[in-house]
Amino acid sequence: MSTDFRQAALQYHAKPRPGKICTGLTKPAETARDLSLAYSPGVAEPVREIAKDRDKAYEYTGKGNLVAVITNGTAILGLGALGPLASKPVMEGKALLFKRFADIDAMDIEVDTKDPQQFIDVVRCIADTFGGINLEDIKAPECFEIERQLVESCDIPVFHDDQHGTAIVTAAGMLNALEIQGKRLEDTKIVCLGAGAAAIACMRLLISLGARQEHLYMLDRGGVIYSGREGVNSFKQEFVNDGGARTLDDAIEGADVFVGLSGANLLSSEQLKRMAPAPVIFACSNPDPEISRELAMCIRDDLIMATGRSDYPNQVNNVLGFPFIFRGALDVRASRINEAMKVAAVQAIRQLTKEPVPREVLEAHQLTELSFGRDYIIPKALDKRLLTVVSAAVAQAAIDSGVARLPYPAHYPL
Amino acid sequence: MSTDFRQAALQYHAKPRPGKICTGLTKPAETARDLSLAYSPGVAEPVREIAKDRDKAYEYTGKGNLVAVITNGTAILGLGALGPLASKPVMEGKALLFKRFADIDAMDIEVDTKDPQQFIDVVRCIADTFGGINLEDIKAPECFEIERQLVESCDIPVFHDDQHGTAIVTAAGMLNALEIQGKRLEDTKIVCLGAGAAAIACMRLLISLGARQEHLYMLDRGGVIYSGREGVNSFKQEFVNDGGARTLDDAIEGADVFVGLSGANLLSSEQLKRMAPAPVIFACSNPDPEISRELAMCIRDDLIMATGRSDYPNQVNNVLGFPFIFRGALDVRASRINEAMKVAAVQAIRQLTKEPVPREVLEAHQLTELSFGRDYIIPKALDKRLLTVVSAAVAQAAIDSGVARLPYPAHYPL
Repeated sequence: MSTDFRQAALQYHAKPRPGKICTGLTKPAETARDLSLAYSPGVAEPVREIAKDRDKAYEYTGKGNLVAVITNGTAILGLGALGPLASKPVMEGKALLFKRFADIDAMDIEVDTKDPQQFIDVVRCIADTFGGINLEDIKAPECFEIERQLVESCDIPVFHDDQHGTAIVTAAGMLNALEIQGKRLEDTKIVCLGAGAAAIACMRLLISLGARQEHLYMLDRGGVIYSGREGVNSFKQEFVNDGGARTLDDAIEGADVFVGLSGANLLSSEQLKRMAPAPVIFACSNPDPEISRELAMCIRDDLIMATGRSDYPNQVNNVLGFPFIFRGALDVRASRINEAMKVAAVQAIRQLTKEPVPREVLEAHQLTELSFGRDYIIPKALDKRLLTVVSAAVAQAAIDSGVARLPYPAHYPL
Repeated sequence: MSTDFRQAALQYHAKPRPGKICTGLTKPAETARDLSLAYSPGVAEPVREIAKDRDKAYEYTGKGNLVAVITNGTAILGLGALGPLASKPVMEGKALLFKRFADIDAMDIEVDTKDPQQFIDVVRCIADTFGGINLEDIKAPECFEIERQLVESCDIPVFHDDQHGTAIVTAAGMLNALEIQGKRLEDTKIVCLGAGAAAIACMRLLISLGARQEHLYMLDRGGVIYSGREGVNSFKQEFVNDGGARTLDDAIEGADVFVGLSGANLLSSEQLKRMAPAPVIFACSNPDPEISRELAMCIRDDLIMATGRSDYPNQVNNVLGFPFIFRGALDVRASRINEAMKVAAVQAIRQLTKEPVPREVLEAHQLTELSFGRDYIIPKALDKRLLTVVSAAVAQAAIDSGVARLPYPAHYPL
C-alpha cells in the first residue's frame, strides 16, 4: 500500500466523524405521541405480545433484519491476534458491507476473551438480540468448535464467513474456471496451500460438490498433510493424503488446480510450469498473491487465474456472498444456513457470471467489456443483480430444505 | 390504555418495517475505491493504529459515540421478569431515545441469563465494543452488585438508568419544589414508599445532596425499614430508621415529602391530609400514581405534585437525564459517570427550569404558558436546551473531577 493510500484510509475512518456506521430511527419520534408509542407506555404492548410468543419479536422489533458481526480478534485479516478492540474497524467495515449490499442492519461485537468456551457462552447469551450471527476473524482451529456449538444451540443462522463465505465464492469461480478449461471437478487433482479456516472450508465444500479426497493435497507449514504426520489436528486430519507426496514440489506435479490461502510468493515459476495443461490458480493471499498475476500469465498462456485483489480480473471477494446469503436466510427466518443454502449460493453466483453484464456494472468497475471466459469467472462486486439472484436462491433452498420459518421470502424495504 | 392506543402501539412497532431502529453508513461506500478504504485493504491501517494505542479506537471507529442498552429482562417496565427477548422493544425504545435526543448511536443487547455473575462476565467481555453502557430493567437487588462490578472493571461509563437517571431527575424536581415551598432539604422529613432500585438510588442522591438520614423513612411491602426487621437486605439496611414508625400511617405524620416508587393508589387521602403544611408529593408509579393528581389537588391546595405521566404537569421523565448525561460523558471520553457528574446534571436540569421557556417548547407540548412554579418544577421532555446545558455541565464536571480523558468536549456533529 502506498503512503497516500494509507493516509487516505486513516482519513476515511476519522473524518468528518470517527468510524463508518451509525444507528438511525425507522419510525417517527418527534411528538409527545410518537414517543408514547415508541417508549412508555405504548412499548408495553409489543413486550406482552413477545412474552406470549417469541416469534412476535420478528414483527415488533428489528431482530429479523439485524446481524451481529462478532469476533474475538484472534485472526484479524492477515495481521494476527491483535485483540478485540483493534479488530473493530474490520467488524464495522463488515457491518457497512452488510448494509451497503443487502440493507441488513449489522452491528459489530468485539468479545474480549481467547477462551473458546467463554466466547461461545457470551455469544449464546446475547443471541436473542439478533436475527443472525456472522462470526469473523477467529483463528483456527478454535473457530470450528465455536461455530459448531453455536449453530447447534442458537435458533438463528450462525455463519463463519472466513470459512463459508470464502468457500462459496471460491467454489463458484472454480466450477466456472473448470468448465472453461474443459475439466470436471471429479477428475481434477487439487493442491491447497494453506490449512486454516478458509482452506479447510473451501476443500470441504469442493468435496461436497464432487471433488475427490484422494486427488486432493492440503499443505500447511509442515508440507503435505498425511496420516501420522506431526502437527495434524483433527480438522486437518480430514484431508490426509497418503499418496506419497510430501512437499509442494511433489504435490504440484500434474495438478489441475492450485488454491492458495497462505502467503505471498509461495508458488514458484517452476512449480507453475509443472502443473497439468490448462490449470486453474486461485492465489488468494492478500495483498500479495502466492504468485503474481503478471508472472503467472507470462509463464503459461493456458492458465485461468483468480486472486483476492480488486485490481485484477477474477477477484475472489466475500462480498459476493455473505450479504446475500444472510439476506436470503433472514427473509425466510431460516434457523440456520445449511449445506443446501450454501450450494444454492454457489450455483446462483456461478450462473450469474454467464449472463450478459449490464452497462451499469461495467461503468461501476470502469470496464468496457466483460463476458464469461477466463478473465470473468466470478461476478463483479458492484453487480446489483447479486442481491436478487443469490438471496432468492438461498431463501428458496432454505424453504426446500425445511429450515425456513416463513413459507415465502418477506423482504424488507430496500 | 385504550384499545385504540394499544393497537396504535402495535402498528407503530410493526409497520412499515418491524422495530424502530436501524443502522446506517456515515461514510461513502459506493465506488470500488470507497470500499477499498472502508474494508480490505485500507481497513488494516486503523487496525494497526489501534493495536498500538487503544485510544485510537475513538478516532477511527464509532466506539466513542456508541452506547449499549443492556438488560437481562428481569424487571421490564412494571411488567416483571418476562425475559430478554420480550424486553427488546423497550431496549430498542431506549436506543431510539438516545439517538433522538442526543445523537448517540445506541444498540440494544439482551442477555439471556438470570445469573448476575454470568451477566457481569458477558457485559465485561463485550464492553470494548462500546463507548458507554446503559443498564436497564435489571431487578433489584442484583442490579446494585452488577453495576458496582461493571463500573469497577470497565474503562467506559456504566450507568444503570433505572437507578441514577430516575434519581437525578427526581432530585432536580425535588429541589425546585422545596425551594418553592420555602423548605430546605436538610430539614425535610421524607417518606419513600418503595425500596427498589430507583427508590434506593433516589434516596442515596437526596442524602448526598443534604437530606438527613434520620429524617428519612423508607418503606417496602413489610412497612418501614428499621434495624433488625426481617427481609432487610444490605441495600435497604442503609436506610434503617429507628425513630419508631412502623407503617406508612406512622411515617407520613408531618412528612414534608412523599416519594412514591411503588404502586397505584397506595397513598390514601387521609395520609395526604396528615402531611406537614406545603408538602411535596412525587407519585411516580406508572401508569397510575400512588394517589391521583385530581384527588390530591382536591384535598390540599398547598401541595406540589409530580408524577410519571406526560398528561400532567411535572412529569418525572428519565429522558430529561440519560441522553444528555451520556452525551456529556462521551464528549470528554469520561471513564465513568461519577457523583460530581450526577450532581452537575441535577443542578443543570434544575436551573433550566428557572429560565424563560421558548415558544417552540410550548408549541411542542401544546401549551400557551409555562413559568417556574408549582406546576413547572422540571423541564419539559421536548425542551431542546437540555442537550446543551445538561451535556455541557456533565462534561465540565467530568473534567473537573478528573475522570475525563479529553480536556474539552469534542462534540459529534448533530
